Amino acid sequence: MRSYLDCIPCFVRQALEAARLVACDEKTSEKVVRRVLALAAEMDLNQSPPVMGGKIHRVIRQVTGKDDPYKKIKQKFNALALRMYPEMKGLVAGSPKPLETAVRLAIAGNIIDFGVSSSLKTAEVEQTIEDSLKTDFDMSEFEEFSAAVKKARKILYLCDNAGEIVFDRLLIEQLPYEKITCVVKGSPVINDATMEDAVITGLTEVVKVIENGSDDPGTVLKACSEDFRRRFDRADLVIAKGQGNYETLSDADKNIFFILKAKCPVIARHLGCQVGTMILSKSRAFKKAVG
Amino acid sequence: MRSYLDCIPCFVRQALEAARLVACDEKTSEKVVRRVLALAAEMDLNQSPPVMGGKIHRVIRQVTGKDDPYKKIKQKFNALALRMYPEMKGLVAGSPKPLETAVRLAIAGNIIDFGVSSSLKTAEVEQTIEDSLKTDFDMSEFEEFSAAVKKARKILYLCDNAGEIVFDRLLIEQLPYEKITCVVKGSPVINDATMEDAVITGLTEVVKVIENGSDDPGTVLKACSEDFRRRFDRADLVIAKGQGNYETLSDADKNIFFILKAKCPVIARHLGCQVGTMILSKSRAFKKAVG
Repeated sequence: MRSYLDCIPCFVRQALEAARLVACDEKTSEKVVRRVLALAAEMDLNQSPPVMGGKIHRVIRQVTGKDDPYKKIKQKFNALALRMYPEMKGLVAGSPKPLETAVRLAIAGNIIDFGVSSSLKTAEVEQTIEDSLKTDFDMSEFEEFSAAVKKARKILYLCDNAGEIVFDRLLIEQLPYEKITCVVKGSPVINDATMEDAVITGLTEVVKVIENGSDDPGTVLKACSEDFRRRFDRADLVIAKGQGNYETLSDADKNIFFILKAKCPVIARHLGCQVGTMILSKSRAFKKAVG
Repeated sequence: MRSYLDCIPCFVRQALEAARLVACDEKTSEKVVRRVLALAAEMDLNQSPPVMGGKIHRVIRQVTGKDDPYKKIKQKFNALALRMYPEMKGLVAGSPKPLETAVRLAIAGNIIDFGVSSSLKTAEVEQTIEDSLKTDFDMSEFEEFSAAVKKARKILYLCDNAGEIVFDRLLIEQLPYEKITCVVKGSPVINDATMEDAVITGLTEVVKVIENGSDDPGTVLKACSEDFRRRFDRADLVIAKGQGNYETLSDADKNIFFILKAKCPVIARHLGCQVGTMILSKSRAFKKAVG
């Protein structure tokens, strides 16, 4: 999807929030904000929001001199999710519909997104999990998702954030994981999961994990490595987690299932839903899985 | 007061909201937003927020080609306030503390501010009036205000917005209005009151009204006419209404009473209060009224 005018004030607000989260002083934050304003004044609205997100966070890393400013936040939420993992694993195991429960929990995990808000409390994650288990949501494509996963030979699972990947692990454990390759970012951007997070959370013990070669907070194909693009082309099913992957791949000519929580009004409008809605939805270009 | 980093995302959001309210199409709004981003990237944070506000709305008028884009909104709220006037006048007349009631209503009228939000409903104005009559607020400087008004020889009453000036009229009618000169903007900016509004609402029949020669949404002294500045210097008391006048005059070396509703978090922090608080407060430089 393209960027909308409504994204622009939000980019500026996010840049300020992120700069303050990372920088030690207002002068540094001011430098970040001024550079982001200048970038936004010239931005190409035909590009998806994560392209601008990538630029903003490159500015933040350059101006603050911190390569991985969200490292502590990622560690915190990896640890939190790992503490929750045994109980969630039990919920899935004890569920009459384990795959559905795992999908619900994977969507709940998408709340751990510092691209949308720079303040997230443990209690909010716990509340989101609780809500995700009982909230009604559009499950009309669930059977198709389940069938597509069974029929596919090569599945790419595009991860989103640190911490959240523990919730993805729960879902992946309910899927034929021998066919799945998980994808993390090539280098740090916001709290997006990198290989370090995949190792720490044990994801690499369950499934093959690769890097996409990019530091955009989504999957901007032309910014990814050639190796990743080849794998993307060859996969017959892509599971794309989170807003950034939806924003960057909603128009891709590919069999994709998007799994996310719609957390911003622009994405909610694009999806035709309310903010906060749980989403399991196939791409427009999705072709019926071949038998 | 200076501008803060927090003002910047808000400027961009306000520019987009205002552009959409005024412009017919997204292309025009995009042009406005891009120009405002470029201005914000270079802005001097030592200037008060209304200096940037003035620039934003000059851009909007230039890009849209509309000299007075808020004209209809001003007419609507003038008419609404005039319809409410007889009842409010009755409330003041029937009050055991008519001056206090008039101050409360004048503060309530400050809700009619399209610089803060571009959506304001009639019901919200009515609710604000109702609340203003019963809400506790810091009246510790009320007696001093009352005394200052009595002792002053020349009072300037700096008006804020169209519609709101009907509420100001209620207050002015409780004051020694022969000593008061009301001030409106020199030309249109947002929904700030101009001479046209002062005439339509009958303010000119009650009190002398002059223009300040400026199109900033506040009182940026160096942008005002020489005539206004001379009157400002000569006045021994200034009553400054609304956020824009607070932002531009909070540091002025002058006997000023600010009357407003703190509607934005930056101003609330500057005043040391919560958002939504009713304010009757003298300037830091205020010198005890001479007997």
